[in-house]
Amino acid sequence: MKIMVQKFGGTSVADLACMRRVLDKVRVPLGQGFKVVAVLSARAGETNRLLALADEWSPAPDPAECDALISTGEQVSTALFAMLLKDAGIKARSVLAFQAGILTNAEYGKARIASIDQAALRAMFQEHDVLVAAGFQGVSPSGRISTLGRGGSDTSAVAIAAALKAEMCEIYTDVEGVFTADPNIVSGARKLERINYDEMLEMASMGAKVLEIRSVEFARKYSVPVHVRSTFTDAPGTLLIKEDKKMENALLSGVTQDKDQARITLRACPDRPGVSAGIFGPLAEAGITVDMIVQNPSRDGVTDVTFTVSRKDLKKALAEVEKLRARMEGMEVLHDAGVCKVSLVGVGMRNHSGIAAKAFEALAGENINILMISTSEIKISCLIEEKYIELAVRALHDAFELGHVQR
Amino acid sequence: MKIMVQKFGGTSVADLACMRRVLDKVRVPLGQGFKVVAVLSARAGETNRLLALADEWSPAPDPAECDALISTGEQVSTALFAMLLKDAGIKARSVLAFQAGILTNAEYGKARIASIDQAALRAMFQEHDVLVAAGFQGVSPSGRISTLGRGGSDTSAVAIAAALKAEMCEIYTDVEGVFTADPNIVSGARKLERINYDEMLEMASMGAKVLEIRSVEFARKYSVPVHVRSTFTDAPGTLLIKEDKKMENALLSGVTQDKDQARITLRACPDRPGVSAGIFGPLAEAGITVDMIVQNPSRDGVTDVTFTVSRKDLKKALAEVEKLRARMEGMEVLHDAGVCKVSLVGVGMRNHSGIAAKAFEALAGENINILMISTSEIKISCLIEEKYIELAVRALHDAFELGHVQR
Repeated sequence: MKIMVQKFGGTSVADLACMRRVLDKVRVPLGQGFKVVAVLSARAGETNRLLALADEWSPAPDPAECDALISTGEQVSTALFAMLLKDAGIKARSVLAFQAGILTNAEYGKARIASIDQAALRAMFQEHDVLVAAGFQGVSPSGRISTLGRGGSDTSAVAIAAALKAEMCEIYTDVEGVFTADPNIVSGARKLERINYDEMLEMASMGAKVLEIRSVEFARKYSVPVHVRSTFTDAPGTLLIKEDKKMENALLSGVTQDKDQARITLRACPDRPGVSAGIFGPLAEAGITVDMIVQNPSRDGVTDVTFTVSRKDLKKALAEVEKLRARMEGMEVLHDAGVCKVSLVGVGMRNHSGIAAKAFEALAGENINILMISTSEIKISCLIEEKYIELAVRALHDAFELGHVQR
Repeated sequence: MKIMVQKFGGTSVADLACMRRVLDKVRVPLGQGFKVVAVLSARAGETNRLLALADEWSPAPDPAECDALISTGEQVSTALFAMLLKDAGIKARSVLAFQAGILTNAEYGKARIASIDQAALRAMFQEHDVLVAAGFQGVSPSGRISTLGRGGSDTSAVAIAAALKAEMCEIYTDVEGVFTADPNIVSGARKLERINYDEMLEMASMGAKVLEIRSVEFARKYSVPVHVRSTFTDAPGTLLIKEDKKMENALLSGVTQDKDQARITLRACPDRPGVSAGIFGPLAEAGITVDMIVQNPSRDGVTDVTFTVSRKDLKKALAEVEKLRARMEGMEVLHDAGVCKVSLVGVGMRNHSGIAAKAFEALAGENINILMISTSEIKISCLIEEKYIELAVRALHDAFELGHVQR
């Protein structure tokens, strides 16, 4: 049994006309002899409508009840789409999380998938050619409905593809694939034919909002081939696969930007063992995710620690830092919400020296001051002033000639 | 463990203000040491909104998908109400059909409950004081969501009460209970303190739209005490119980009317064996429910057969009858959509003669012509011209002094 998983987001299933277009997408693998799992999100706007109801009803809605509430969005879209398929003479049915045995942990609102009952899904294929599965939802250990968090339908699709050992997981979205840079910023940005999981993870976490990051982790863990493509064209998109020979030739896969950055500097912290734990422990406990962290070598027994957080967390982070003052005599706190991160990503970076130097040079050539630097094996990130972000992306994209196919 | 089941309809849970009133109703048995199952319908208008979506999507929506779609209405109301209870400090959770193991047959859209996993519900009471159960829904033998048909939440509530051997099943509605006649027609109509299952069955099927008829059948089968009462007052309503000593004294419980009647007369049918089957077989196959049937003794080898159907089915029924003409030479077909049924119901009728005569006399006293008569052990129904219906109801109500308490 050849199986194809196809995921369609909220804008792809927004109304009847949209769903008719999705129907055409489903016909393609059907015509090629595939059995199909179509994973659907809630219709555009529906989840927000339901969340607004929850907010009207309760100042702090119970997370489990909130999940029971908002999971109805996917239930509605799958039932409607299955009706459409049946009317088109296709043997189809809707499948909810409890029917597919999509088990998660108990973290309502951001649950993680633990297992999927692939035998149950395969049994449904005895009588049906298309299973219209509700994305975003699962069942907790106590049998209650859980949801996977925003963008969770991507994860549902990849997880189902992994469980069924599907030939391919197609993620339909409103962009044509993964680009070397944001086409809105760089006119010469090129669509990547293929990208590997690690690069995609860096791209996704850097702000390329094509795929939900957990779905990429899932795809990587189970080696699920993912095809990111557009609902609105028939052109092939970007293939997300394991590293292969072809890829090794490509030095870099892209430049990404992340505007959701705010910087906090603790100047002249007393440099004692445990000082970092003393700073970042309380931030983690307050639920604040810290992104970049830089600590300079100590001088005269004090050091500067700089880190970045999401802009919405800046106020909360500053409040936490204030509490440290008593133990950090002489410390000065600076902050800046007008900063952005630009990153170069590429698996080829591992085997090539000089990439970093060339990147810094490209930014310097445009008189862009680098505020912080952070690197991993396959990426280089620089924090810069927000006003330079587009200029920086274009400068890096040009310097490495990412607009040209690298073979 | 003392258990109280309370059912709240769509108008009772329409919005936040309504649900706050329902919260007060739930507090009463809680304060008396009961564990409570609150069975909720979808918020008023919601089921119709979802059905309209189905109609937009498909000319003949697949019944199973339609059930998956419309069952979200109850899922939304239970999640919202559970939020409200939790915010009020009450240990509560929502419970969907698949979580309560409410198994039905596979007749989507009008499924019948086969069993309920009472152990699962009792286990939930370990940690919760109120279970907010979704009415109207079940799970079919193949694990798909089914719905019980309009008014099905009444049946859900009574079935859950039966499964849990609850002390009582309270059905909250927008009327104060069951009356001896429609108070809109008879100003002296009296609220019945109690009524037995058989009488209620006759009352319900005659058009007293207080309780869904299948819920009464369920209550009768499992001897579930049901209390029909108003969401808008604290006054006791009508107790639906097994026949008891007190009841035997009451001769009659009420007068009901049913305006949804249309009459068809087949005059001068050839009277041969199998003629009735030849008439009513095709009608049943066409999905037409026939209510009253009267056949006069044959004369000169022909007979008159008269029956009534729902007005919406009149056209379809006449078309079926036309097909019989070939085999029924000389038959004349008459019909009349301007007829109504008035009925006297009462378990005391069994042991008293003269009730029928007195009823006919009361109608004759108002010059009301009786078109058809049909009787059972505990009811007498007369078909009359529609224009006389209110007059007939008042005449019967007065003749038997139903406005006075009978002890």
